[in-house]
Amino acid sequence: MKKNVCYYRVIYGDTDQMGVVYYANYLRWFEMGRTELLRQLGAPYSSIEDRGLFFPVAEVSSRYLKSARFDDEIAVETYVQEIARASIVFGYKILRKNDGALLVEGWTRHACLDRLGKVVRIPRQLDDVLRTATAD
Amino acid sequence: MKKNVCYYRVIYGDTDQMGVVYYANYLRWFEMGRTELLRQLGAPYSSIEDRGLFFPVAEVSSRYLKSARFDDEIAVETYVQEIARASIVFGYKILRKNDGALLVEGWTRHACLDRLGKVVRIPRQLDDVLRTATAD
Amino acid sequence: MKKNVCYYRVIYGDTDQMGVVYYANYLRWFEMGRTELLRQLGAPYSSIEDRGLFFPVAEVSSRYLKSARFDDEIAVETYVQEIARASIVFGYKILRKNDGALLVEGWTRHACLDRLGKVVRIPRQLDDVLRTATAD
Amino acid sequence: MKKNVCYYRVIYGDTDQMGVVYYANYLRWFEMGRTELLRQLGAPYSSIEDRGLFFPVAEVSSRYLKSARFDDEIAVETYVQEIARASIVFGYKILRKNDGALLVEGWTRHACLDRLGKVVRIPRQLDDVLRTATAD
Repeated sequence: MKKNVCYYRVIYGDTDQMGVVYYANYLRWFEMGRTELLRQLGAPYSSIEDRGLFFPVAEVSSRYLKSARFDDEIAVETYVQEIARASIVFGYKILRKNDGALLVEGWTRHACLDRLGKVVRIPRQLDDVLRTATAD
Repeated sequence: MKKNVCYYRVIYGDTDQMGVVYYANYLRWFEMGRTELLRQLGAPYSSIEDRGLFFPVAEVSSRYLKSARFDDEIAVETYVQEIARASIVFGYKILRKNDGALLVEGWTRHACLDRLGKVVRIPRQLDDVLRTATAD
Repeated sequence: MKKNVCYYRVIYGDTDQMGVVYYANYLRWFEMGRTELLRQLGAPYSSIEDRGLFFPVAEVSSRYLKSARFDDEIAVETYVQEIARASIVFGYKILRKNDGALLVEGWTRHACLDRLGKVVRIPRQLDDVLRTATAD
Repeated sequence: MKKNVCYYRVIYGDTDQMGVVYYANYLRWFEMGRTELLRQLGAPYSSIEDRGLFFPVAEVSSRYLKSARFDDEIAVETYVQEIARASIVFGYKILRKNDGALLVEGWTRHACLDRLGKVVRIPRQLDDVLRTATAD
């Protein structure tokens, strides 16, 4: 299985008054992860949009195990969890880089839409590429 | 069942280049909803923190059915979905105000922690109040 | 002079670990203010865009005097500070509602562009309307 | 003069419906830049806070020349523009990495405060270090 690992350093603007990262911000890093995974697979998201396909998020699930803090370096691991005819599920793990602690894990389900917002089949070639990043 | 309904007008800064609200931003409105529900129940979150209790988000789930757009007025409906000994689940519906269309629905599960980050029982009085906002 | 006053309740997600609102977030409320001013003047920004005009921000200046905190209600006062042939300056004051303390003041300068990104003259009718909101 | 250069890849969540980065988000990258500059100078901001000093933003100014777009790699150049007894001004340039185009330039002025929020003199040792990053 191919997965992508990318890194990010937490800024002050990501934290809230509890002194930890605000829960919505991890979803930004999920996006960062899936964008980098697509790039790594040779199918950058901008090229997908150029072909008139869009992958809006239809569902997200996220479990918060430990908190990221200001100045932590985090690693975002992203893989393809599931592909169907016209939808795809990306899975994510967000880890603290210095000790490998698992902070957050989650997934996002995306529909495949055309320019008119109609659900369409994922093109064969893209489907093939995405399958190389699925578990087993 | 008591539920809270609060309103928000979508700004430019909430949207992304797809022309709709970025998916992480709905989680901000979930927060707005649960804060207003607690206020309505007479237990504002700031008073809860003053008593040394914290309700960090342990898990979130969100389904995106339709998109909110710039300048849409949205209604956030919040209720208590479940209460356990030391955790609470809030449920949310985000609707477009002008036609009542359901845009997003979701829930967040929160642990009840003390100042040291230890899981503690939800105080009896607060538990009683929260139960008045659960669906029967 | 017409000015607009709109209100917002600070959420957790607006704060940072210093326990106060993160400095970039006030710019979101500047946007909220100018959008509401335009609506009040009968020229909502969405109708301006529908006519093929765009007012991207060319410059911003903001002074932070006191901090807004979680759950504070803030008032955003917005007025037109200056209008030129093809640009407009909005001025802002952000106040704490309960005691009227001035928290932040600032301004944004906007170019008037057409769909192609070319600088164009502000249409006469819009210019007239905007002038009613300038300080004399 | 020492300056810091750090890099960031624009995500979808940074953009707005005009198809470009929302103006408030550049202020996040200003923060990223000054944090990395302090780290490079051997005075990471977390160590400054550990010593009981805080540098809240007192003023920001930002000029938007060109727009960053989704997936653009940007370079943030940060330097010390001015140091006074109890305040410091950081200067920033945000450039598009692939062609070096200047997108945004700005500065932030910070007060030096102690834990009680009182303005205090910048410690000698820190002042010395910061001066190495000022323009001649």
